[in-house]
Amino acid sequence: MKQVYFDNNATTKVDKTVLEAMLPYLEENYGNPSSMYHLAKASSDALTKSREKIAKFLGAKNPNKEIIFTSCATESANMAIRGILKESKGKKHLITTRVEHPCVLNLHKELEKEGYKVTYINVDTDGSLDINELRSSIQEDTALVSVMWANNETGTLFDVKEIAKIVKEINPQTKFFTDAVQAAGKVKIDVSNSDIDMLSVSGHKFHAPKGVGVLYVKAGTIISPLIIGGHQERAKRAGTENVPYIVGIASAAELADKYLEEENTRVKYLRDKLEQGILKNVFNAKLNSTNKNRVPNTTNIGFQYIEGELILLHLDELGIYASSGSACTSGSLEPSHVLRAMGVPFTSLHGSIRFSLSRYNTEEEVDYVIENMPKIIDKLAKISPFQKELEELRQKHQEQCVRNSVG
Amino acid sequence: MKQVYFDNNATTKVDKTVLEAMLPYLEENYGNPSSMYHLAKASSDALTKSREKIAKFLGAKNPNKEIIFTSCATESANMAIRGILKESKGKKHLITTRVEHPCVLNLHKELEKEGYKVTYINVDTDGSLDINELRSSIQEDTALVSVMWANNETGTLFDVKEIAKIVKEINPQTKFFTDAVQAAGKVKIDVSNSDIDMLSVSGHKFHAPKGVGVLYVKAGTIISPLIIGGHQERAKRAGTENVPYIVGIASAAELADKYLEEENTRVKYLRDKLEQGILKNVFNAKLNSTNKNRVPNTTNIGFQYIEGELILLHLDELGIYASSGSACTSGSLEPSHVLRAMGVPFTSLHGSIRFSLSRYNTEEEVDYVIENMPKIIDKLAKISPFQKELEELRQKHQEQCVRNSVG
Repeated sequence: MKQVYFDNNATTKVDKTVLEAMLPYLEENYGNPSSMYHLAKASSDALTKSREKIAKFLGAKNPNKEIIFTSCATESANMAIRGILKESKGKKHLITTRVEHPCVLNLHKELEKEGYKVTYINVDTDGSLDINELRSSIQEDTALVSVMWANNETGTLFDVKEIAKIVKEINPQTKFFTDAVQAAGKVKIDVSNSDIDMLSVSGHKFHAPKGVGVLYVKAGTIISPLIIGGHQERAKRAGTENVPYIVGIASAAELADKYLEEENTRVKYLRDKLEQGILKNVFNAKLNSTNKNRVPNTTNIGFQYIEGELILLHLDELGIYASSGSACTSGSLEPSHVLRAMGVPFTSLHGSIRFSLSRYNTEEEVDYVIENMPKIIDKLAKISPFQKELEELRQKHQEQCVRNSVG
Repeated sequence: MKQVYFDNNATTKVDKTVLEAMLPYLEENYGNPSSMYHLAKASSDALTKSREKIAKFLGAKNPNKEIIFTSCATESANMAIRGILKESKGKKHLITTRVEHPCVLNLHKELEKEGYKVTYINVDTDGSLDINELRSSIQEDTALVSVMWANNETGTLFDVKEIAKIVKEINPQTKFFTDAVQAAGKVKIDVSNSDIDMLSVSGHKFHAPKGVGVLYVKAGTIISPLIIGGHQERAKRAGTENVPYIVGIASAAELADKYLEEENTRVKYLRDKLEQGILKNVFNAKLNSTNKNRVPNTTNIGFQYIEGELILLHLDELGIYASSGSACTSGSLEPSHVLRAMGVPFTSLHGSIRFSLSRYNTEEEVDYVIENMPKIIDKLAKISPFQKELEELRQKHQEQCVRNSVG
């Protein structure tokens, strides 16, 4: 069956080059990098080299001091946030945004239960952050500000370097963390000469396997470990290192840099074509974020008055894989917290679909989706209880089409 | 060059069958198990099946409720211990042993800094636990007792089922955790009908890759998550699941059961031959633990008045890989905390070598080590500052040999 994978913000296919780089460490080079003998040297050398590659990928100056390998970006975020709080001498205030990934948002909710105060910054209908609200929220007692680099659901980019700068201007003691999971491989990450103290990325969002992440911690920023035990990762993250996957994420980072241009030209072209094609051909389609600052691979479209899960089911039958909300929240029936924070109306909220592309996608696949989307929506529109509203949308859409063809 | 890998307690070679089981999930079956479409079903089905296999391996009755996949056993231990403390309503006392792995021991040291009280139970010269001391240490306020199943350095087995039973008899509210990392694949793990509340294992100690572990939590025992975010692992361990490695550890668990008989016959025979061969042929060799309750693959031998690191260096040159202490503590110059707790004298402490075998080892390899060990020790004895002491040992050894040949 045809397979069109448009859910690359959920996870990505492991690149063949990445797998090939990993395989020797799943086969003959199995030594524990902490051991002292020859067999283990291949492992510890691989760690060193991978650390250098990741540092280069992120613009970090000091691979040995600044790069910590973790099991996933969720661990990285937990480690960053809890780790900085332990070193913040009883400061009790945190700032984050309403549109963060669950690994940041749910942790903050837990921290509130533990006695911390959290300010959640709002976004506007385009998903842009209310910088003034952020500015006025920073207090003497603010230990940490956490703002994501790119949103997983809408692709909206936040100017985290500028935000970090503002934070430091107001309170130089406040630390700044950014979840850069959805930015890595899509836009250039460069922490050099920035005020970013900590940054997390996840391998499986840019063609490394699921189960490896990185936490960048700027030299001089002190965090406590989350996982305690052996001396691995300079005693910041205990546990025998996952050498194969660390080699994998480093290889994937090199490839991401290599393909960054393509991501921002060919992949962006495909995304734009998909977006425009759907908006033109599907009468009830409405873009959830028209933000110009978006990663090149993502679009989030509301199909008004239609149930998103039903759309996904019909797409699935055609071998088209997309998602409503994030994979991390799927299974729950709650509508997306990101779209709600943007004030997306109820009429679109339950019928919003995220399409997220990658360098593996083709124009043929985009055409296939554009061709099939109207059929699916027409079919589902027939069984919708909102016949009157849908009819109005259909008429408006037709008028728009006529106007466009005349104009 | 010849390679004799006798460091299987540090890490193991990934079994070919395990790698083959994993590969489809590093290639075509890359869907996020949380996603709803067909591609993802392969991943979520693999998770379900793996969970069942691991439950069977451990004797757990309820795969869905009792098996949590983690990134390593160090994470499992941190999660178990911190997770239970969060649910223990302010209880401030913990009990563990002096010979635990750093992931348990160092975490307890950290907990002491955070205000907890810890009782460390002693062992005798054979490495056996002082059960009376443990018994009398249990208080009303004791939240958790953590005792390892098998020691990583000496292979000594603790009767954790019996210990758990004692704990519950004295205080039914006290929880019991066992680090079973060095027991899995060497002796049968079976938590059914036991008082064990939590148990950890690590994939890379029984021929799965480094970077995957399990935490068993008995149904009804409530722990807080260590890593917060998405709903994965029933919201007990957030982060996209490492499907390939989870498939890998499940496959390795099946193989471990299959080879358990061989481990306790052929591998045990090889270990015994190695141990006896070295004790017979090397004049200053002395067994550090003569405990009858030992895993079948491990021996820890002190070479008196000789520096362990020098022995390892010479072994390495011959392609023989062994270790002093655990890999997790290597790099530090401190002598083994396990051997110190057993009261191993200074004369052996710095020259103790652990040999840990696996099903991949052969009798030829054992003979190769037995043949070379005396040459290495003789060479190093010449440059030792302890000439008088070594000469005495040599004479004693010769007398013993004569006595044995006469007797």
